[in-house]
Amino acid sequence: MRVKLTIEYDGTNYAGWQRQENALAVQQVVEEALFRLTGKPHAVTGASRTDAGVHAFGQVAHFDAQSRIPAEKYAYALNTVLPADVRIRDSRAVAEDFHARFSAKGKWYCYSIFNDAHASAILRNTHAHVMYPLDVDAMRREAQCAVGRHDFRAFAASGSVVKDTVRTIHSIEIARQGKCVSMQVRGNGFLYNMVRILAGTLIGVGTGKLEGGAVRRALASGSRLDLGVTAPACGLTLMEVFYDA
Amino acid sequence: MRVKLTIEYDGTNYAGWQRQENALAVQQVVEEALFRLTGKPHAVTGASRTDAGVHAFGQVAHFDAQSRIPAEKYAYALNTVLPADVRIRDSRAVAEDFHARFSAKGKWYCYSIFNDAHASAILRNTHAHVMYPLDVDAMRREAQCAVGRHDFRAFAASGSVVKDTVRTIHSIEIARQGKCVSMQVRGNGFLYNMVRILAGTLIGVGTGKLEGGAVRRALASGSRLDLGVTAPACGLTLMEVFYDA
Repeated sequence: MRVKLTIEYDGTNYAGWQRQENALAVQQVVEEALFRLTGKPHAVTGASRTDAGVHAFGQVAHFDAQSRIPAEKYAYALNTVLPADVRIRDSRAVAEDFHARFSAKGKWYCYSIFNDAHASAILRNTHAHVMYPLDVDAMRREAQCAVGRHDFRAFAASGSVVKDTVRTIHSIEIARQGKCVSMQVRGNGFLYNMVRILAGTLIGVGTGKLEGGAVRRALASGSRLDLGVTAPACGLTLMEVFYDA
Repeated sequence: MRVKLTIEYDGTNYAGWQRQENALAVQQVVEEALFRLTGKPHAVTGASRTDAGVHAFGQVAHFDAQSRIPAEKYAYALNTVLPADVRIRDSRAVAEDFHARFSAKGKWYCYSIFNDAHASAILRNTHAHVMYPLDVDAMRREAQCAVGRHDFRAFAASGSVVKDTVRTIHSIEIARQGKCVSMQVRGNGFLYNMVRILAGTLIGVGTGKLEGGAVRRALASGSRLDLGVTAPACGLTLMEVFYDA
């Protein structure tokens, strides 16, 4: 039986999703929890390789169950052995050909900013601190240039080896609530660091450090140099992964 | 020169606001930061003795400056030496007779709940977890019985020695946003543990574990036994302390 997990984690203390040699990753923590629960090794495949410090409210993963635990009980059982900064939000049986990564039709990321002269104590691990006032209208105008189907190779981290760099961004919504500014980005897929480079560029335009039109120029030139810095990992949260029903 | 500080802190790793013998309190951290900055001892007086694990977005404190640093620069200077889970949001000069506690005219607390079968990883330190569905309408009805001027002795933690237990709650607003339920409580003052006992009672009524009318019965009887459990410290945040302008 193939089981789909929806996983929330506070990425602060992890080296990202993907299992690593010398640092603790969320994938390893979930696989070890499955081992503690069943006494059998399980490989858990995630939809998104979130970076160190990046959070998830709705990471999705699948594994092939090696026990008779009903699929919907895995969430309850795993949460009794997982650390408090990793929670299974949902578990359910899926078709044998479901694949967390390859079946994904789209993703929703949220980038969160605390915009004030002084950083936030309470939100320090989940919001990037921007000390200069953000012009949210300018950010919205800039963001609209990224919406649609484009070759986003300028938005890929240097050293990235993906061949097809065409992606579709469905929508970018930017909202201010007091000192917090959030960017909700939905698309059919994202290159490595793409959302953080987009966020850093919009922050640059929002503070006036970067000239408006940067996204348009970068889409035309394909050059990473036309864009802003990569925004800090802590501001990024993978909210949801979309699949065909 | 008397200086008023507005202080934010993530209370997770502190034994509360007030300086203690064997545990680290926020007051001590701020006093030590002032010492590192000026080389002189300062006594810092806070408006509210928040408990261990309770957070503040707007704790207020005052001290008498022993240096020539302009009042409004203390926020910037202190934030360079404070740990990241304590931030000075604002510093300003006030009248010599301003007193953070005795001049306070009211306070605003927020109690935050994550309401789902499974606890939240990301919000685990700032939201109390309630696994049974909350009836927010029932909570609102119950809350209205606490609004107004009442003798709240039933809402004081046992062992409390305050003589005058009459307080005025100005308003209680309860809102649901997805899996999060927040209670905003504003009043002219609060007894020790009063907001957490009120929150625990409203949670009890909201889950159906406690019969409606508990607040009314407790105000009449003065008995702590008519109320629900004291809700966990981590859900509570001191949002703002009010003073005459």
